[in-house]
Amino acid sequence: MTNLGYTPEEPIAAIATALAPGALGIVRASGKNCIELLSKCFSRPKALLAAEGNTIVYGWILQPENCAETGAKIDEVLVSVFRAPRSFTGEDMVEISCHGGVNVVQSVYNLLLGNGFRQAEKGEFTFRAYINGKTDLTKAEAVREIIDSKTNVSRSHAAGRLAGNLYDTIDGVKKLVVDTLAAIEVEIEYPEDEETIADSFDSAELTKAKTALEELAGSWKAEKIYQDGARVVLCGRTNAGKSSLFNALLKEDRAIVSDIEGTTRDFIESWIDFDGIPARLFDTAGLRQTDDVIEAVGVERTRDLSEEADLILYLVDSVSGMNDEDRSFISNYIERNSKIPLILVFTKADASSQKLSEKNASDRACTKLPQSIEKSSVSISSKTGQGLSELSTAVRNALSLAEKSERNQTGLGSERQKVCVEQALECVNHALELTEDYALDAVVQDLEDCLDFLGEVTGEVTPDDVLGSIFSRFCVGK
Amino acid sequence: MTNLGYTPEEPIAAIATALAPGALGIVRASGKNCIELLSKCFSRPKALLAAEGNTIVYGWILQPENCAETGAKIDEVLVSVFRAPRSFTGEDMVEISCHGGVNVVQSVYNLLLGNGFRQAEKGEFTFRAYINGKTDLTKAEAVREIIDSKTNVSRSHAAGRLAGNLYDTIDGVKKLVVDTLAAIEVEIEYPEDEETIADSFDSAELTKAKTALEELAGSWKAEKIYQDGARVVLCGRTNAGKSSLFNALLKEDRAIVSDIEGTTRDFIESWIDFDGIPARLFDTAGLRQTDDVIEAVGVERTRDLSEEADLILYLVDSVSGMNDEDRSFISNYIERNSKIPLILVFTKADASSQKLSEKNASDRACTKLPQSIEKSSVSISSKTGQGLSELSTAVRNALSLAEKSERNQTGLGSERQKVCVEQALECVNHALELTEDYALDAVVQDLEDCLDFLGEVTGEVTPDDVLGSIFSRFCVGK
Repeated sequence: MTNLGYTPEEPIAAIATALAPGALGIVRASGKNCIELLSKCFSRPKALLAAEGNTIVYGWILQPENCAETGAKIDEVLVSVFRAPRSFTGEDMVEISCHGGVNVVQSVYNLLLGNGFRQAEKGEFTFRAYINGKTDLTKAEAVREIIDSKTNVSRSHAAGRLAGNLYDTIDGVKKLVVDTLAAIEVEIEYPEDEETIADSFDSAELTKAKTALEELAGSWKAEKIYQDGARVVLCGRTNAGKSSLFNALLKEDRAIVSDIEGTTRDFIESWIDFDGIPARLFDTAGLRQTDDVIEAVGVERTRDLSEEADLILYLVDSVSGMNDEDRSFISNYIERNSKIPLILVFTKADASSQKLSEKNASDRACTKLPQSIEKSSVSISSKTGQGLSELSTAVRNALSLAEKSERNQTGLGSERQKVCVEQALECVNHALELTEDYALDAVVQDLEDCLDFLGEVTGEVTPDDVLGSIFSRFCVGK
Repeated sequence: MTNLGYTPEEPIAAIATALAPGALGIVRASGKNCIELLSKCFSRPKALLAAEGNTIVYGWILQPENCAETGAKIDEVLVSVFRAPRSFTGEDMVEISCHGGVNVVQSVYNLLLGNGFRQAEKGEFTFRAYINGKTDLTKAEAVREIIDSKTNVSRSHAAGRLAGNLYDTIDGVKKLVVDTLAAIEVEIEYPEDEETIADSFDSAELTKAKTALEELAGSWKAEKIYQDGARVVLCGRTNAGKSSLFNALLKEDRAIVSDIEGTTRDFIESWIDFDGIPARLFDTAGLRQTDDVIEAVGVERTRDLSEEADLILYLVDSVSGMNDEDRSFISNYIERNSKIPLILVFTKADASSQKLSEKNASDRACTKLPQSIEKSSVSISSKTGQGLSELSTAVRNALSLAEKSERNQTGLGSERQKVCVEQALECVNHALELTEDYALDAVVQDLEDCLDFLGEVTGEVTPDDVLGSIFSRFCVGK
């Protein structure tokens, strides 16, 4: 929804499947009279009108009466009929399962637009579901998250939120806050002796709330990486083995999307599934040239890339070892980007082991480098695959991502949720400080603010502009 | 179907929507026990098992029991349940409507493959529909045609065949042939006097069949162009206005697919909708250089392109007029490709009209060119749009495509059908020749052969290898 000109029950339509050739394509519609409207373009209007909810009606989509080609057949379809309130949006809905050609799906869609339906805005179906109380905001956002998921981990986390685990967690925190508020308000209304205050006001509940909110807020860093992919940049001198590693990783882990189009071709970018971590792997050609006189534009782009990275893999050929160029790059790099982790990757381990032990190579190579880097160095061979799983572990550690077993907890699904949770956490922290002084009125204010922020996460208290920004991130048809 | 190892009722599954992000994605399955198999990965197995045909069941797709992550939620879905024989394939079927993310759709699909379903072959769903008598071959092929349709005309023709108009036409011809056969066989069994023969054997029915078959066979040329697009190649000297026309046509008619990827970039290729005619427009850069010494490869490619063209548009700047280079190209071209029509297009008509009348320009330009080309010349301005609709008409005429009003007849949908129809026609023609000699036994043989060829069109009599080749042209999931 680019704007929130919400027009309740106005019939809307959208192409819901990807508009590319496939066996089937879906055109969906929602709103008052949408079944009646469709029946005017349908070969079996009576069957459609009489259909119960959650049933499927076979027929043809036809040009309606009083048009140039009355009765002309558009496509043979199955129409799924949903009756309010038992539908995704909570309104009457139809989903037309057409043959999946681009022209045929567009023709069916255009026919609806010409016959009483208007084009749905981005996310408008989900927005209606939210407005009609069929979903809260965390579940609504999870719809987008599950569609955008690039790995099993992010999909499974989104599915958890879609099933309501984030809603339940937030709800649990709310209960703790509400209970505390109730106790305080009793105290304010009926002030008795100080012992009772100490009894009735138990900060244990607030402390539990604090812990839960901290865990939620802390989950976002990893969730964000699972959603957006970690930006991992491969650097190193020519012949360090960057392209070999790039290819080995792509082959090992199968590309999610082989290439991202439209990016500046100064570097190669590919999505890979790094042992469950979605990563956008960048193979830079330009970085090594920073010592020389090169075009300013190229330097700038490479620098931008490195500065936005989540992780740098600096490759060194373990046969020829590290030279001054490497050391100077790494030192300069650390100076500029101290916050971005860097892993030193010794390549061609298969070849070097014949000549010298990895230990020696590593020792020799790391001379003069900071201690932190020495610790996170890995020996690999793109040829034999040796060390690639150790590299995955090192990547996971460097990105501070927990092991798989620990990753089934409830996490946040969006930056927006994180901001609200952090604000709620701040209120709780402030309230906890105040309770030490027994400033009960101020505590009440904090806790009410906290509930507002939590309500914003789930959508009970959500300003229109926030809603607009949430649903505009959806695709049309959802 | 790459091979026809048909395993009746074996549960098969496929992703039926285009595998790209969208609001919804469909995984479909067909075969014996497919509802039972799915219920093992479904949050509401009892509801699914109890569901009547043509109804929709809400639930979650889950990891089944006895797997590593038993009960883990994959996606919240709607399952459409179809009970044999009331389904597309004629078998029990389910269609799982998932959220339309690439990972989530693949995850649901992979779960099915791990739980009793096997990957469907290309076209296997439609093949089963055919084997189970739910469709004949002309309707089955129309499913692919409607999916591949690039314009409203080709989609509407395919929809006609899907609705059975080709089947009915073929059936009508069959009846004519069968009636004739019956009459002849009576004659052979009970030979009486010659008068009776003349009475009973009325070649009028066979003549009707002949006309119908001729019309069908003749329809394929246009149908093929509507399906595959006419290959229209733009040629001309530098600055003749090729790129301007290319862009004007793209803008005027809206690109169907802006660029076809993976083609050799010696030329630009774009799908355009040329006033209802889908055309693959090629903008060649190399053609004009044929007089000079140029790379053999480039010449070869340009020549291939021209030789496979359905139409050449040769552009001449009407201000500077035609020179010897143009004349020599056109003469050479006509020598080599006499069968491919060429339209002479005088560009920049807006500029030239200020200097000299179009008539004069045209007269001056066409000196020494063959008469046929002079007739099909058009003056246009890519800048003002002048002459573009005349160009469309000229293109339509050159491709021998009838006007829109005449294009609602039944036509053939595939090369395969055309070959069968032509063979049937040959049999009828031969039979008609023979009837003049009253060689009744030979006529019977011809008419029986004719019925076999017609049966091959609709699929009553169809060798396995023909079936294999038909269904292998489908996408998986259909």
